[in-house]
Amino acid sequence: MHRVKVRIVEDALDANNTIARANRDDFDRHGVAVINLMSAPGAGKTTLLERALARPLGDGIRVGVLEGDVQGSYDATRIASLHVPVTQINTDSGFGGECHLDANMVRSALPSVPLADIDLLVIENVGNLVCPAEFRVGEDVRVMVAAVTEGEDKPLKYPLMYRTCELVLINKVDLLPHLEVDMEELLANIDDVNPGVETMIVSARTG
Amino acid sequence: MHRVKVRIVEDALDANNTIARANRDDFDRHGVAVINLMSAPGAGKTTLLERALARPLGDGIRVGVLEGDVQGSYDATRIASLHVPVTQINTDSGFGGECHLDANMVRSALPSVPLADIDLLVIENVGNLVCPAEFRVGEDVRVMVAAVTEGEDKPLKYPLMYRTCELVLINKVDLLPHLEVDMEELLANIDDVNPGVETMIVSARTG
Repeated sequence: MHRVKVRIVEDALDANNTIARANRDDFDRHGVAVINLMSAPGAGKTTLLERALARPLGDGIRVGVLEGDVQGSYDATRIASLHVPVTQINTDSGFGGECHLDANMVRSALPSVPLADIDLLVIENVGNLVCPAEFRVGEDVRVMVAAVTEGEDKPLKYPLMYRTCELVLINKVDLLPHLEVDMEELLANIDDVNPGVETMIVSARTG
Repeated sequence: MHRVKVRIVEDALDANNTIARANRDDFDRHGVAVINLMSAPGAGKTTLLERALARPLGDGIRVGVLEGDVQGSYDATRIASLHVPVTQINTDSGFGGECHLDANMVRSALPSVPLADIDLLVIENVGNLVCPAEFRVGEDVRVMVAAVTEGEDKPLKYPLMYRTCELVLINKVDLLPHLEVDMEELLANIDDVNPGVETMIVSARTG
């Protein structure tokens, strides 16, 4: 039973990687760089995106956003108000709701993404520290948001996510004076699971 | 393809429910009440448990804890220091790590849980707002922890979790003065997806 399960999962991940490569080819053909943005629920992905998109990026870089949510389009509405092209993916079709984006969901949404008119696509994944890390979607880089309010132990408890990203944005640091969270220990734990990974300390709320 | 997938998922959930009932029978035989404790990563499940277990519960209720984590036993170590019987389940065997507990994982751990010596078993699920809600494990009640730091929109974005629980503990309210989070809106959103569900406003940090 266990071996059958492992086999099915490996086949599913192989199939996912094949579709991710097809996505990657489409992005390359249009010269679009792609970020897969991941975090736990409520860590601040959308607010950080809003902040980053509120003024034009350097060098006239044109950005598009692909929003992944189980249900609803609350984040897409927030981003669209900044006059950025947004495409919504909902993962709830079929049953209770997928807890992550996979390459095929992204592929299905690509006809609605104006690849010819953007230089950078930000894919905001479903808020979850486990499964999104297992599914490549054709991205160039993986960025995760870690809110200090989640505590310093999370890199050790959700290591795959921290291990497979190229940049960790440490958010909500304006709250540090009101928390019993040890920032040094958080940074040490991140470095333990992904030695040398880049980190950036930010506050979406205070800027 | 889609229909096949739905069929497989339905079969898996049926199988899960059958095992959940077997767990339930074992709990009933020993007169053990069971709480399935769920939340996003870092919402404060373990800290709330530590607070609740730091002094004896009323009526001499004897508590045991089942800790679900992808990797490690950090929370189990914290709980064990309170001299409460703890059993660890790690979900990372086989591949990247399951994002939830299912009935079979709990069943596999039951031989290590001293059911004859406890009255209440708290099952601390993997930190995740999506999949844990889809898998019954034999519990009597589902309790979720919602940290105000996650923002007021989470009930609308992760409705199944909020809809299937009997009690929502709203945690980290000591941070409200430092957040732009609307508590009234959070409560209204919870009531929208699960009308009449009980809520309790708490702060694990300040007591």
